[in-house]
Amino acid sequence: MKVSNFDELLPINGMKLGTAFAGILDVDHRPDVVVIEIGNTSNTAALFTSSSFKAPPVIVSKNKISRKKPKYIIINTGIANSGTGDKGISDACHICDCIAELMGVDSDSVLACSTGRVGECLPVPKILAAIPEALSSLSVDGWEKAASGILTIDSGPKGVSKKISFDHEVTITGIVKGSGMIKPNMATMLSFVATDACIDDELLNYALKKVVNETFNQITIDRDMSTNDSVFLIATGRSGSVIDEGNFHVFYESLLFIFQELALAVVKDPIEAEHIIEVSVFNALSDEEAKKLANEVAESLSVKTAISNKKPYWGYMLVALGHLEITDFDTKLVNIWINGCHVVKDGAANKLFSKISDNVFDEFLEIRIDVARGRSVRKVLSNDVLHHAHHRSI
Amino acid sequence: MKVSNFDELLPINGMKLGTAFAGILDVDHRPDVVVIEIGNTSNTAALFTSSSFKAPPVIVSKNKISRKKPKYIIINTGIANSGTGDKGISDACHICDCIAELMGVDSDSVLACSTGRVGECLPVPKILAAIPEALSSLSVDGWEKAASGILTIDSGPKGVSKKISFDHEVTITGIVKGSGMIKPNMATMLSFVATDACIDDELLNYALKKVVNETFNQITIDRDMSTNDSVFLIATGRSGSVIDEGNFHVFYESLLFIFQELALAVVKDPIEAEHIIEVSVFNALSDEEAKKLANEVAESLSVKTAISNKKPYWGYMLVALGHLEITDFDTKLVNIWINGCHVVKDGAANKLFSKISDNVFDEFLEIRIDVARGRSVRKVLSNDVLHHAHHRSI
Repeated sequence: MKVSNFDELLPINGMKLGTAFAGILDVDHRPDVVVIEIGNTSNTAALFTSSSFKAPPVIVSKNKISRKKPKYIIINTGIANSGTGDKGISDACHICDCIAELMGVDSDSVLACSTGRVGECLPVPKILAAIPEALSSLSVDGWEKAASGILTIDSGPKGVSKKISFDHEVTITGIVKGSGMIKPNMATMLSFVATDACIDDELLNYALKKVVNETFNQITIDRDMSTNDSVFLIATGRSGSVIDEGNFHVFYESLLFIFQELALAVVKDPIEAEHIIEVSVFNALSDEEAKKLANEVAESLSVKTAISNKKPYWGYMLVALGHLEITDFDTKLVNIWINGCHVVKDGAANKLFSKISDNVFDEFLEIRIDVARGRSVRKVLSNDVLHHAHHRSI
Repeated sequence: MKVSNFDELLPINGMKLGTAFAGILDVDHRPDVVVIEIGNTSNTAALFTSSSFKAPPVIVSKNKISRKKPKYIIINTGIANSGTGDKGISDACHICDCIAELMGVDSDSVLACSTGRVGECLPVPKILAAIPEALSSLSVDGWEKAASGILTIDSGPKGVSKKISFDHEVTITGIVKGSGMIKPNMATMLSFVATDACIDDELLNYALKKVVNETFNQITIDRDMSTNDSVFLIATGRSGSVIDEGNFHVFYESLLFIFQELALAVVKDPIEAEHIIEVSVFNALSDEEAKKLANEVAESLSVKTAISNKKPYWGYMLVALGHLEITDFDTKLVNIWINGCHVVKDGAANKLFSKISDNVFDEFLEIRIDVARGRSVRKVLSNDVLHHAHHRSI
């Protein structure tokens, strides 16, 4: 499926990005190191993977950002520096220290992100050797090159920009990597979003948590939570517009658009994806139940197979809903619609399923599931990718 | 992978099995209806799927067995009669009633099992028409034909027998269907095990729960819990040997062997399976934690992909262990061995992984994971099947 969300990326005053080739990936001389420079006056919020196995760069960055405002983030692709123990920690610190020394900043203000194969140590000398090139290429127009420089098995770069009219014009630009693919090699999600609006730390962190919960936390492909997932939201404040409680909802609407586009781009990324699947569970007993039910359907290999093959096996959605072993589930009250077609009626596959219109298997499948148990709702986004990319080189 | 567990099946005094062709499957005129006759004096224990979406035959049989000792079980393959609502219930009852009338028994003593496609109604007239043929072919030697007659996409019949010396010789014979396959079409597990030992209801139920917990509940392939899973254990008492608390452990040892062989046969069934994976988690904080951690590793598509491709990506096991988001997990204490090779040492991929011996990727992979958190242990069995069988006809 072609990624259609890569527009021209607008510069953000106060943000520079530089890219270099370190030879970690060693594919077509593709850039594999990116440095992001965050101007003074900026605030930065970050969220990291909740895996109990956090990769060393996550441990290091999470620790540093609790102490200092970040000024640089260095990202490498190819090797995730995960499952590398103490050596991984010291490697990540060593790379940060190099930038700190060259740029004359405190080492705590330099963060690191890595993505790629798990269980291998970084080629630190190669990365150190590439840092000067990355720093010398720092540019406000560096977004597009950076969007490419953070990729692993992704089929293409993913990014989006948006302008909002406040007293001064405000711009938001974001990039993401993540193939949303059943991952054999590497499919960590990294995302960097910046705006020139001025937002205080508290509101910025609130905005990031809220928007990630409504976007990146609502995509699920293969049940594999990465050890390296990291998302950054930076507000440089250079536009002169201040976002506060009064105008937050206007800003948030655009921020949500940016994150929605990035999340969709991840789900659309694999060339093998023929269908995008949006599963909404309505009237669950609790938010937790709604989320679990939606995930079971969206992650079910049987459901994906049926959709991928355009087979009307609606029963597999019932099978997936059954996984949670809810004992007081009155299954006769379950109704399911796909793109408006009523495929499961009162807990049973609708007999008319063979006669329904072709739009059931459109590229975008909106699956609405009413479980008639309460009032909670949850939506998740997935795709119908079943196969692994192990044959693909990166 | 060839299924090697199908031996000559020994008759059980008091049990007869008949097979017929109803044309539900419509593949090479393969038999698709099986009737099992359970002699008087027998006790029967049964366990059914814990899915919240139980198929009508499960609902009907569960209900009946709570009231009456079963005398007949009718099984059909091809269509699972699941997701069929009230129509499914009345269809299952109708089929049971037909046998009850023909054989002059109470309808409550006739149970039904179905396996096959979900969301379709049974072709009841076809099944009714096949019942006389199934009844007329009832034979103590019917086990092998029955083992074939319950299959769907399985690559072959699966069954095993064992004799035990008590005061009188006791025999146990069991058959199973289930492909252990990532299932697009049908992969319900059904199993019927019988012995001529005399065992009272309470002990029989205890034995079935215990043995299923140690075997069928420790295999996991694709996370899809079927709506039709049913396992029966029948004791006809005809050998004259009584099993009680005094000799139970001797009997149980053989029963465990039978169930272990059947469970292994399910995991080995798919021809695409190149590796059998046994994951044991040691020193977890609780039984529940041990089970969840073992399942995450055994079900991880990344782990399966790595094994299937013989790639030394031990890090994926750490990724899978991380899924549970255990906050106080000291990952530096995790050690993993594959067939004796120490691939993860103190939470990091062992640097020597590229030099380890070839036996790491033997057909049988024994993965031992020490999480150093407590004293609980759990073992699960899986395989490295990644692809779907949607291209296979049944």
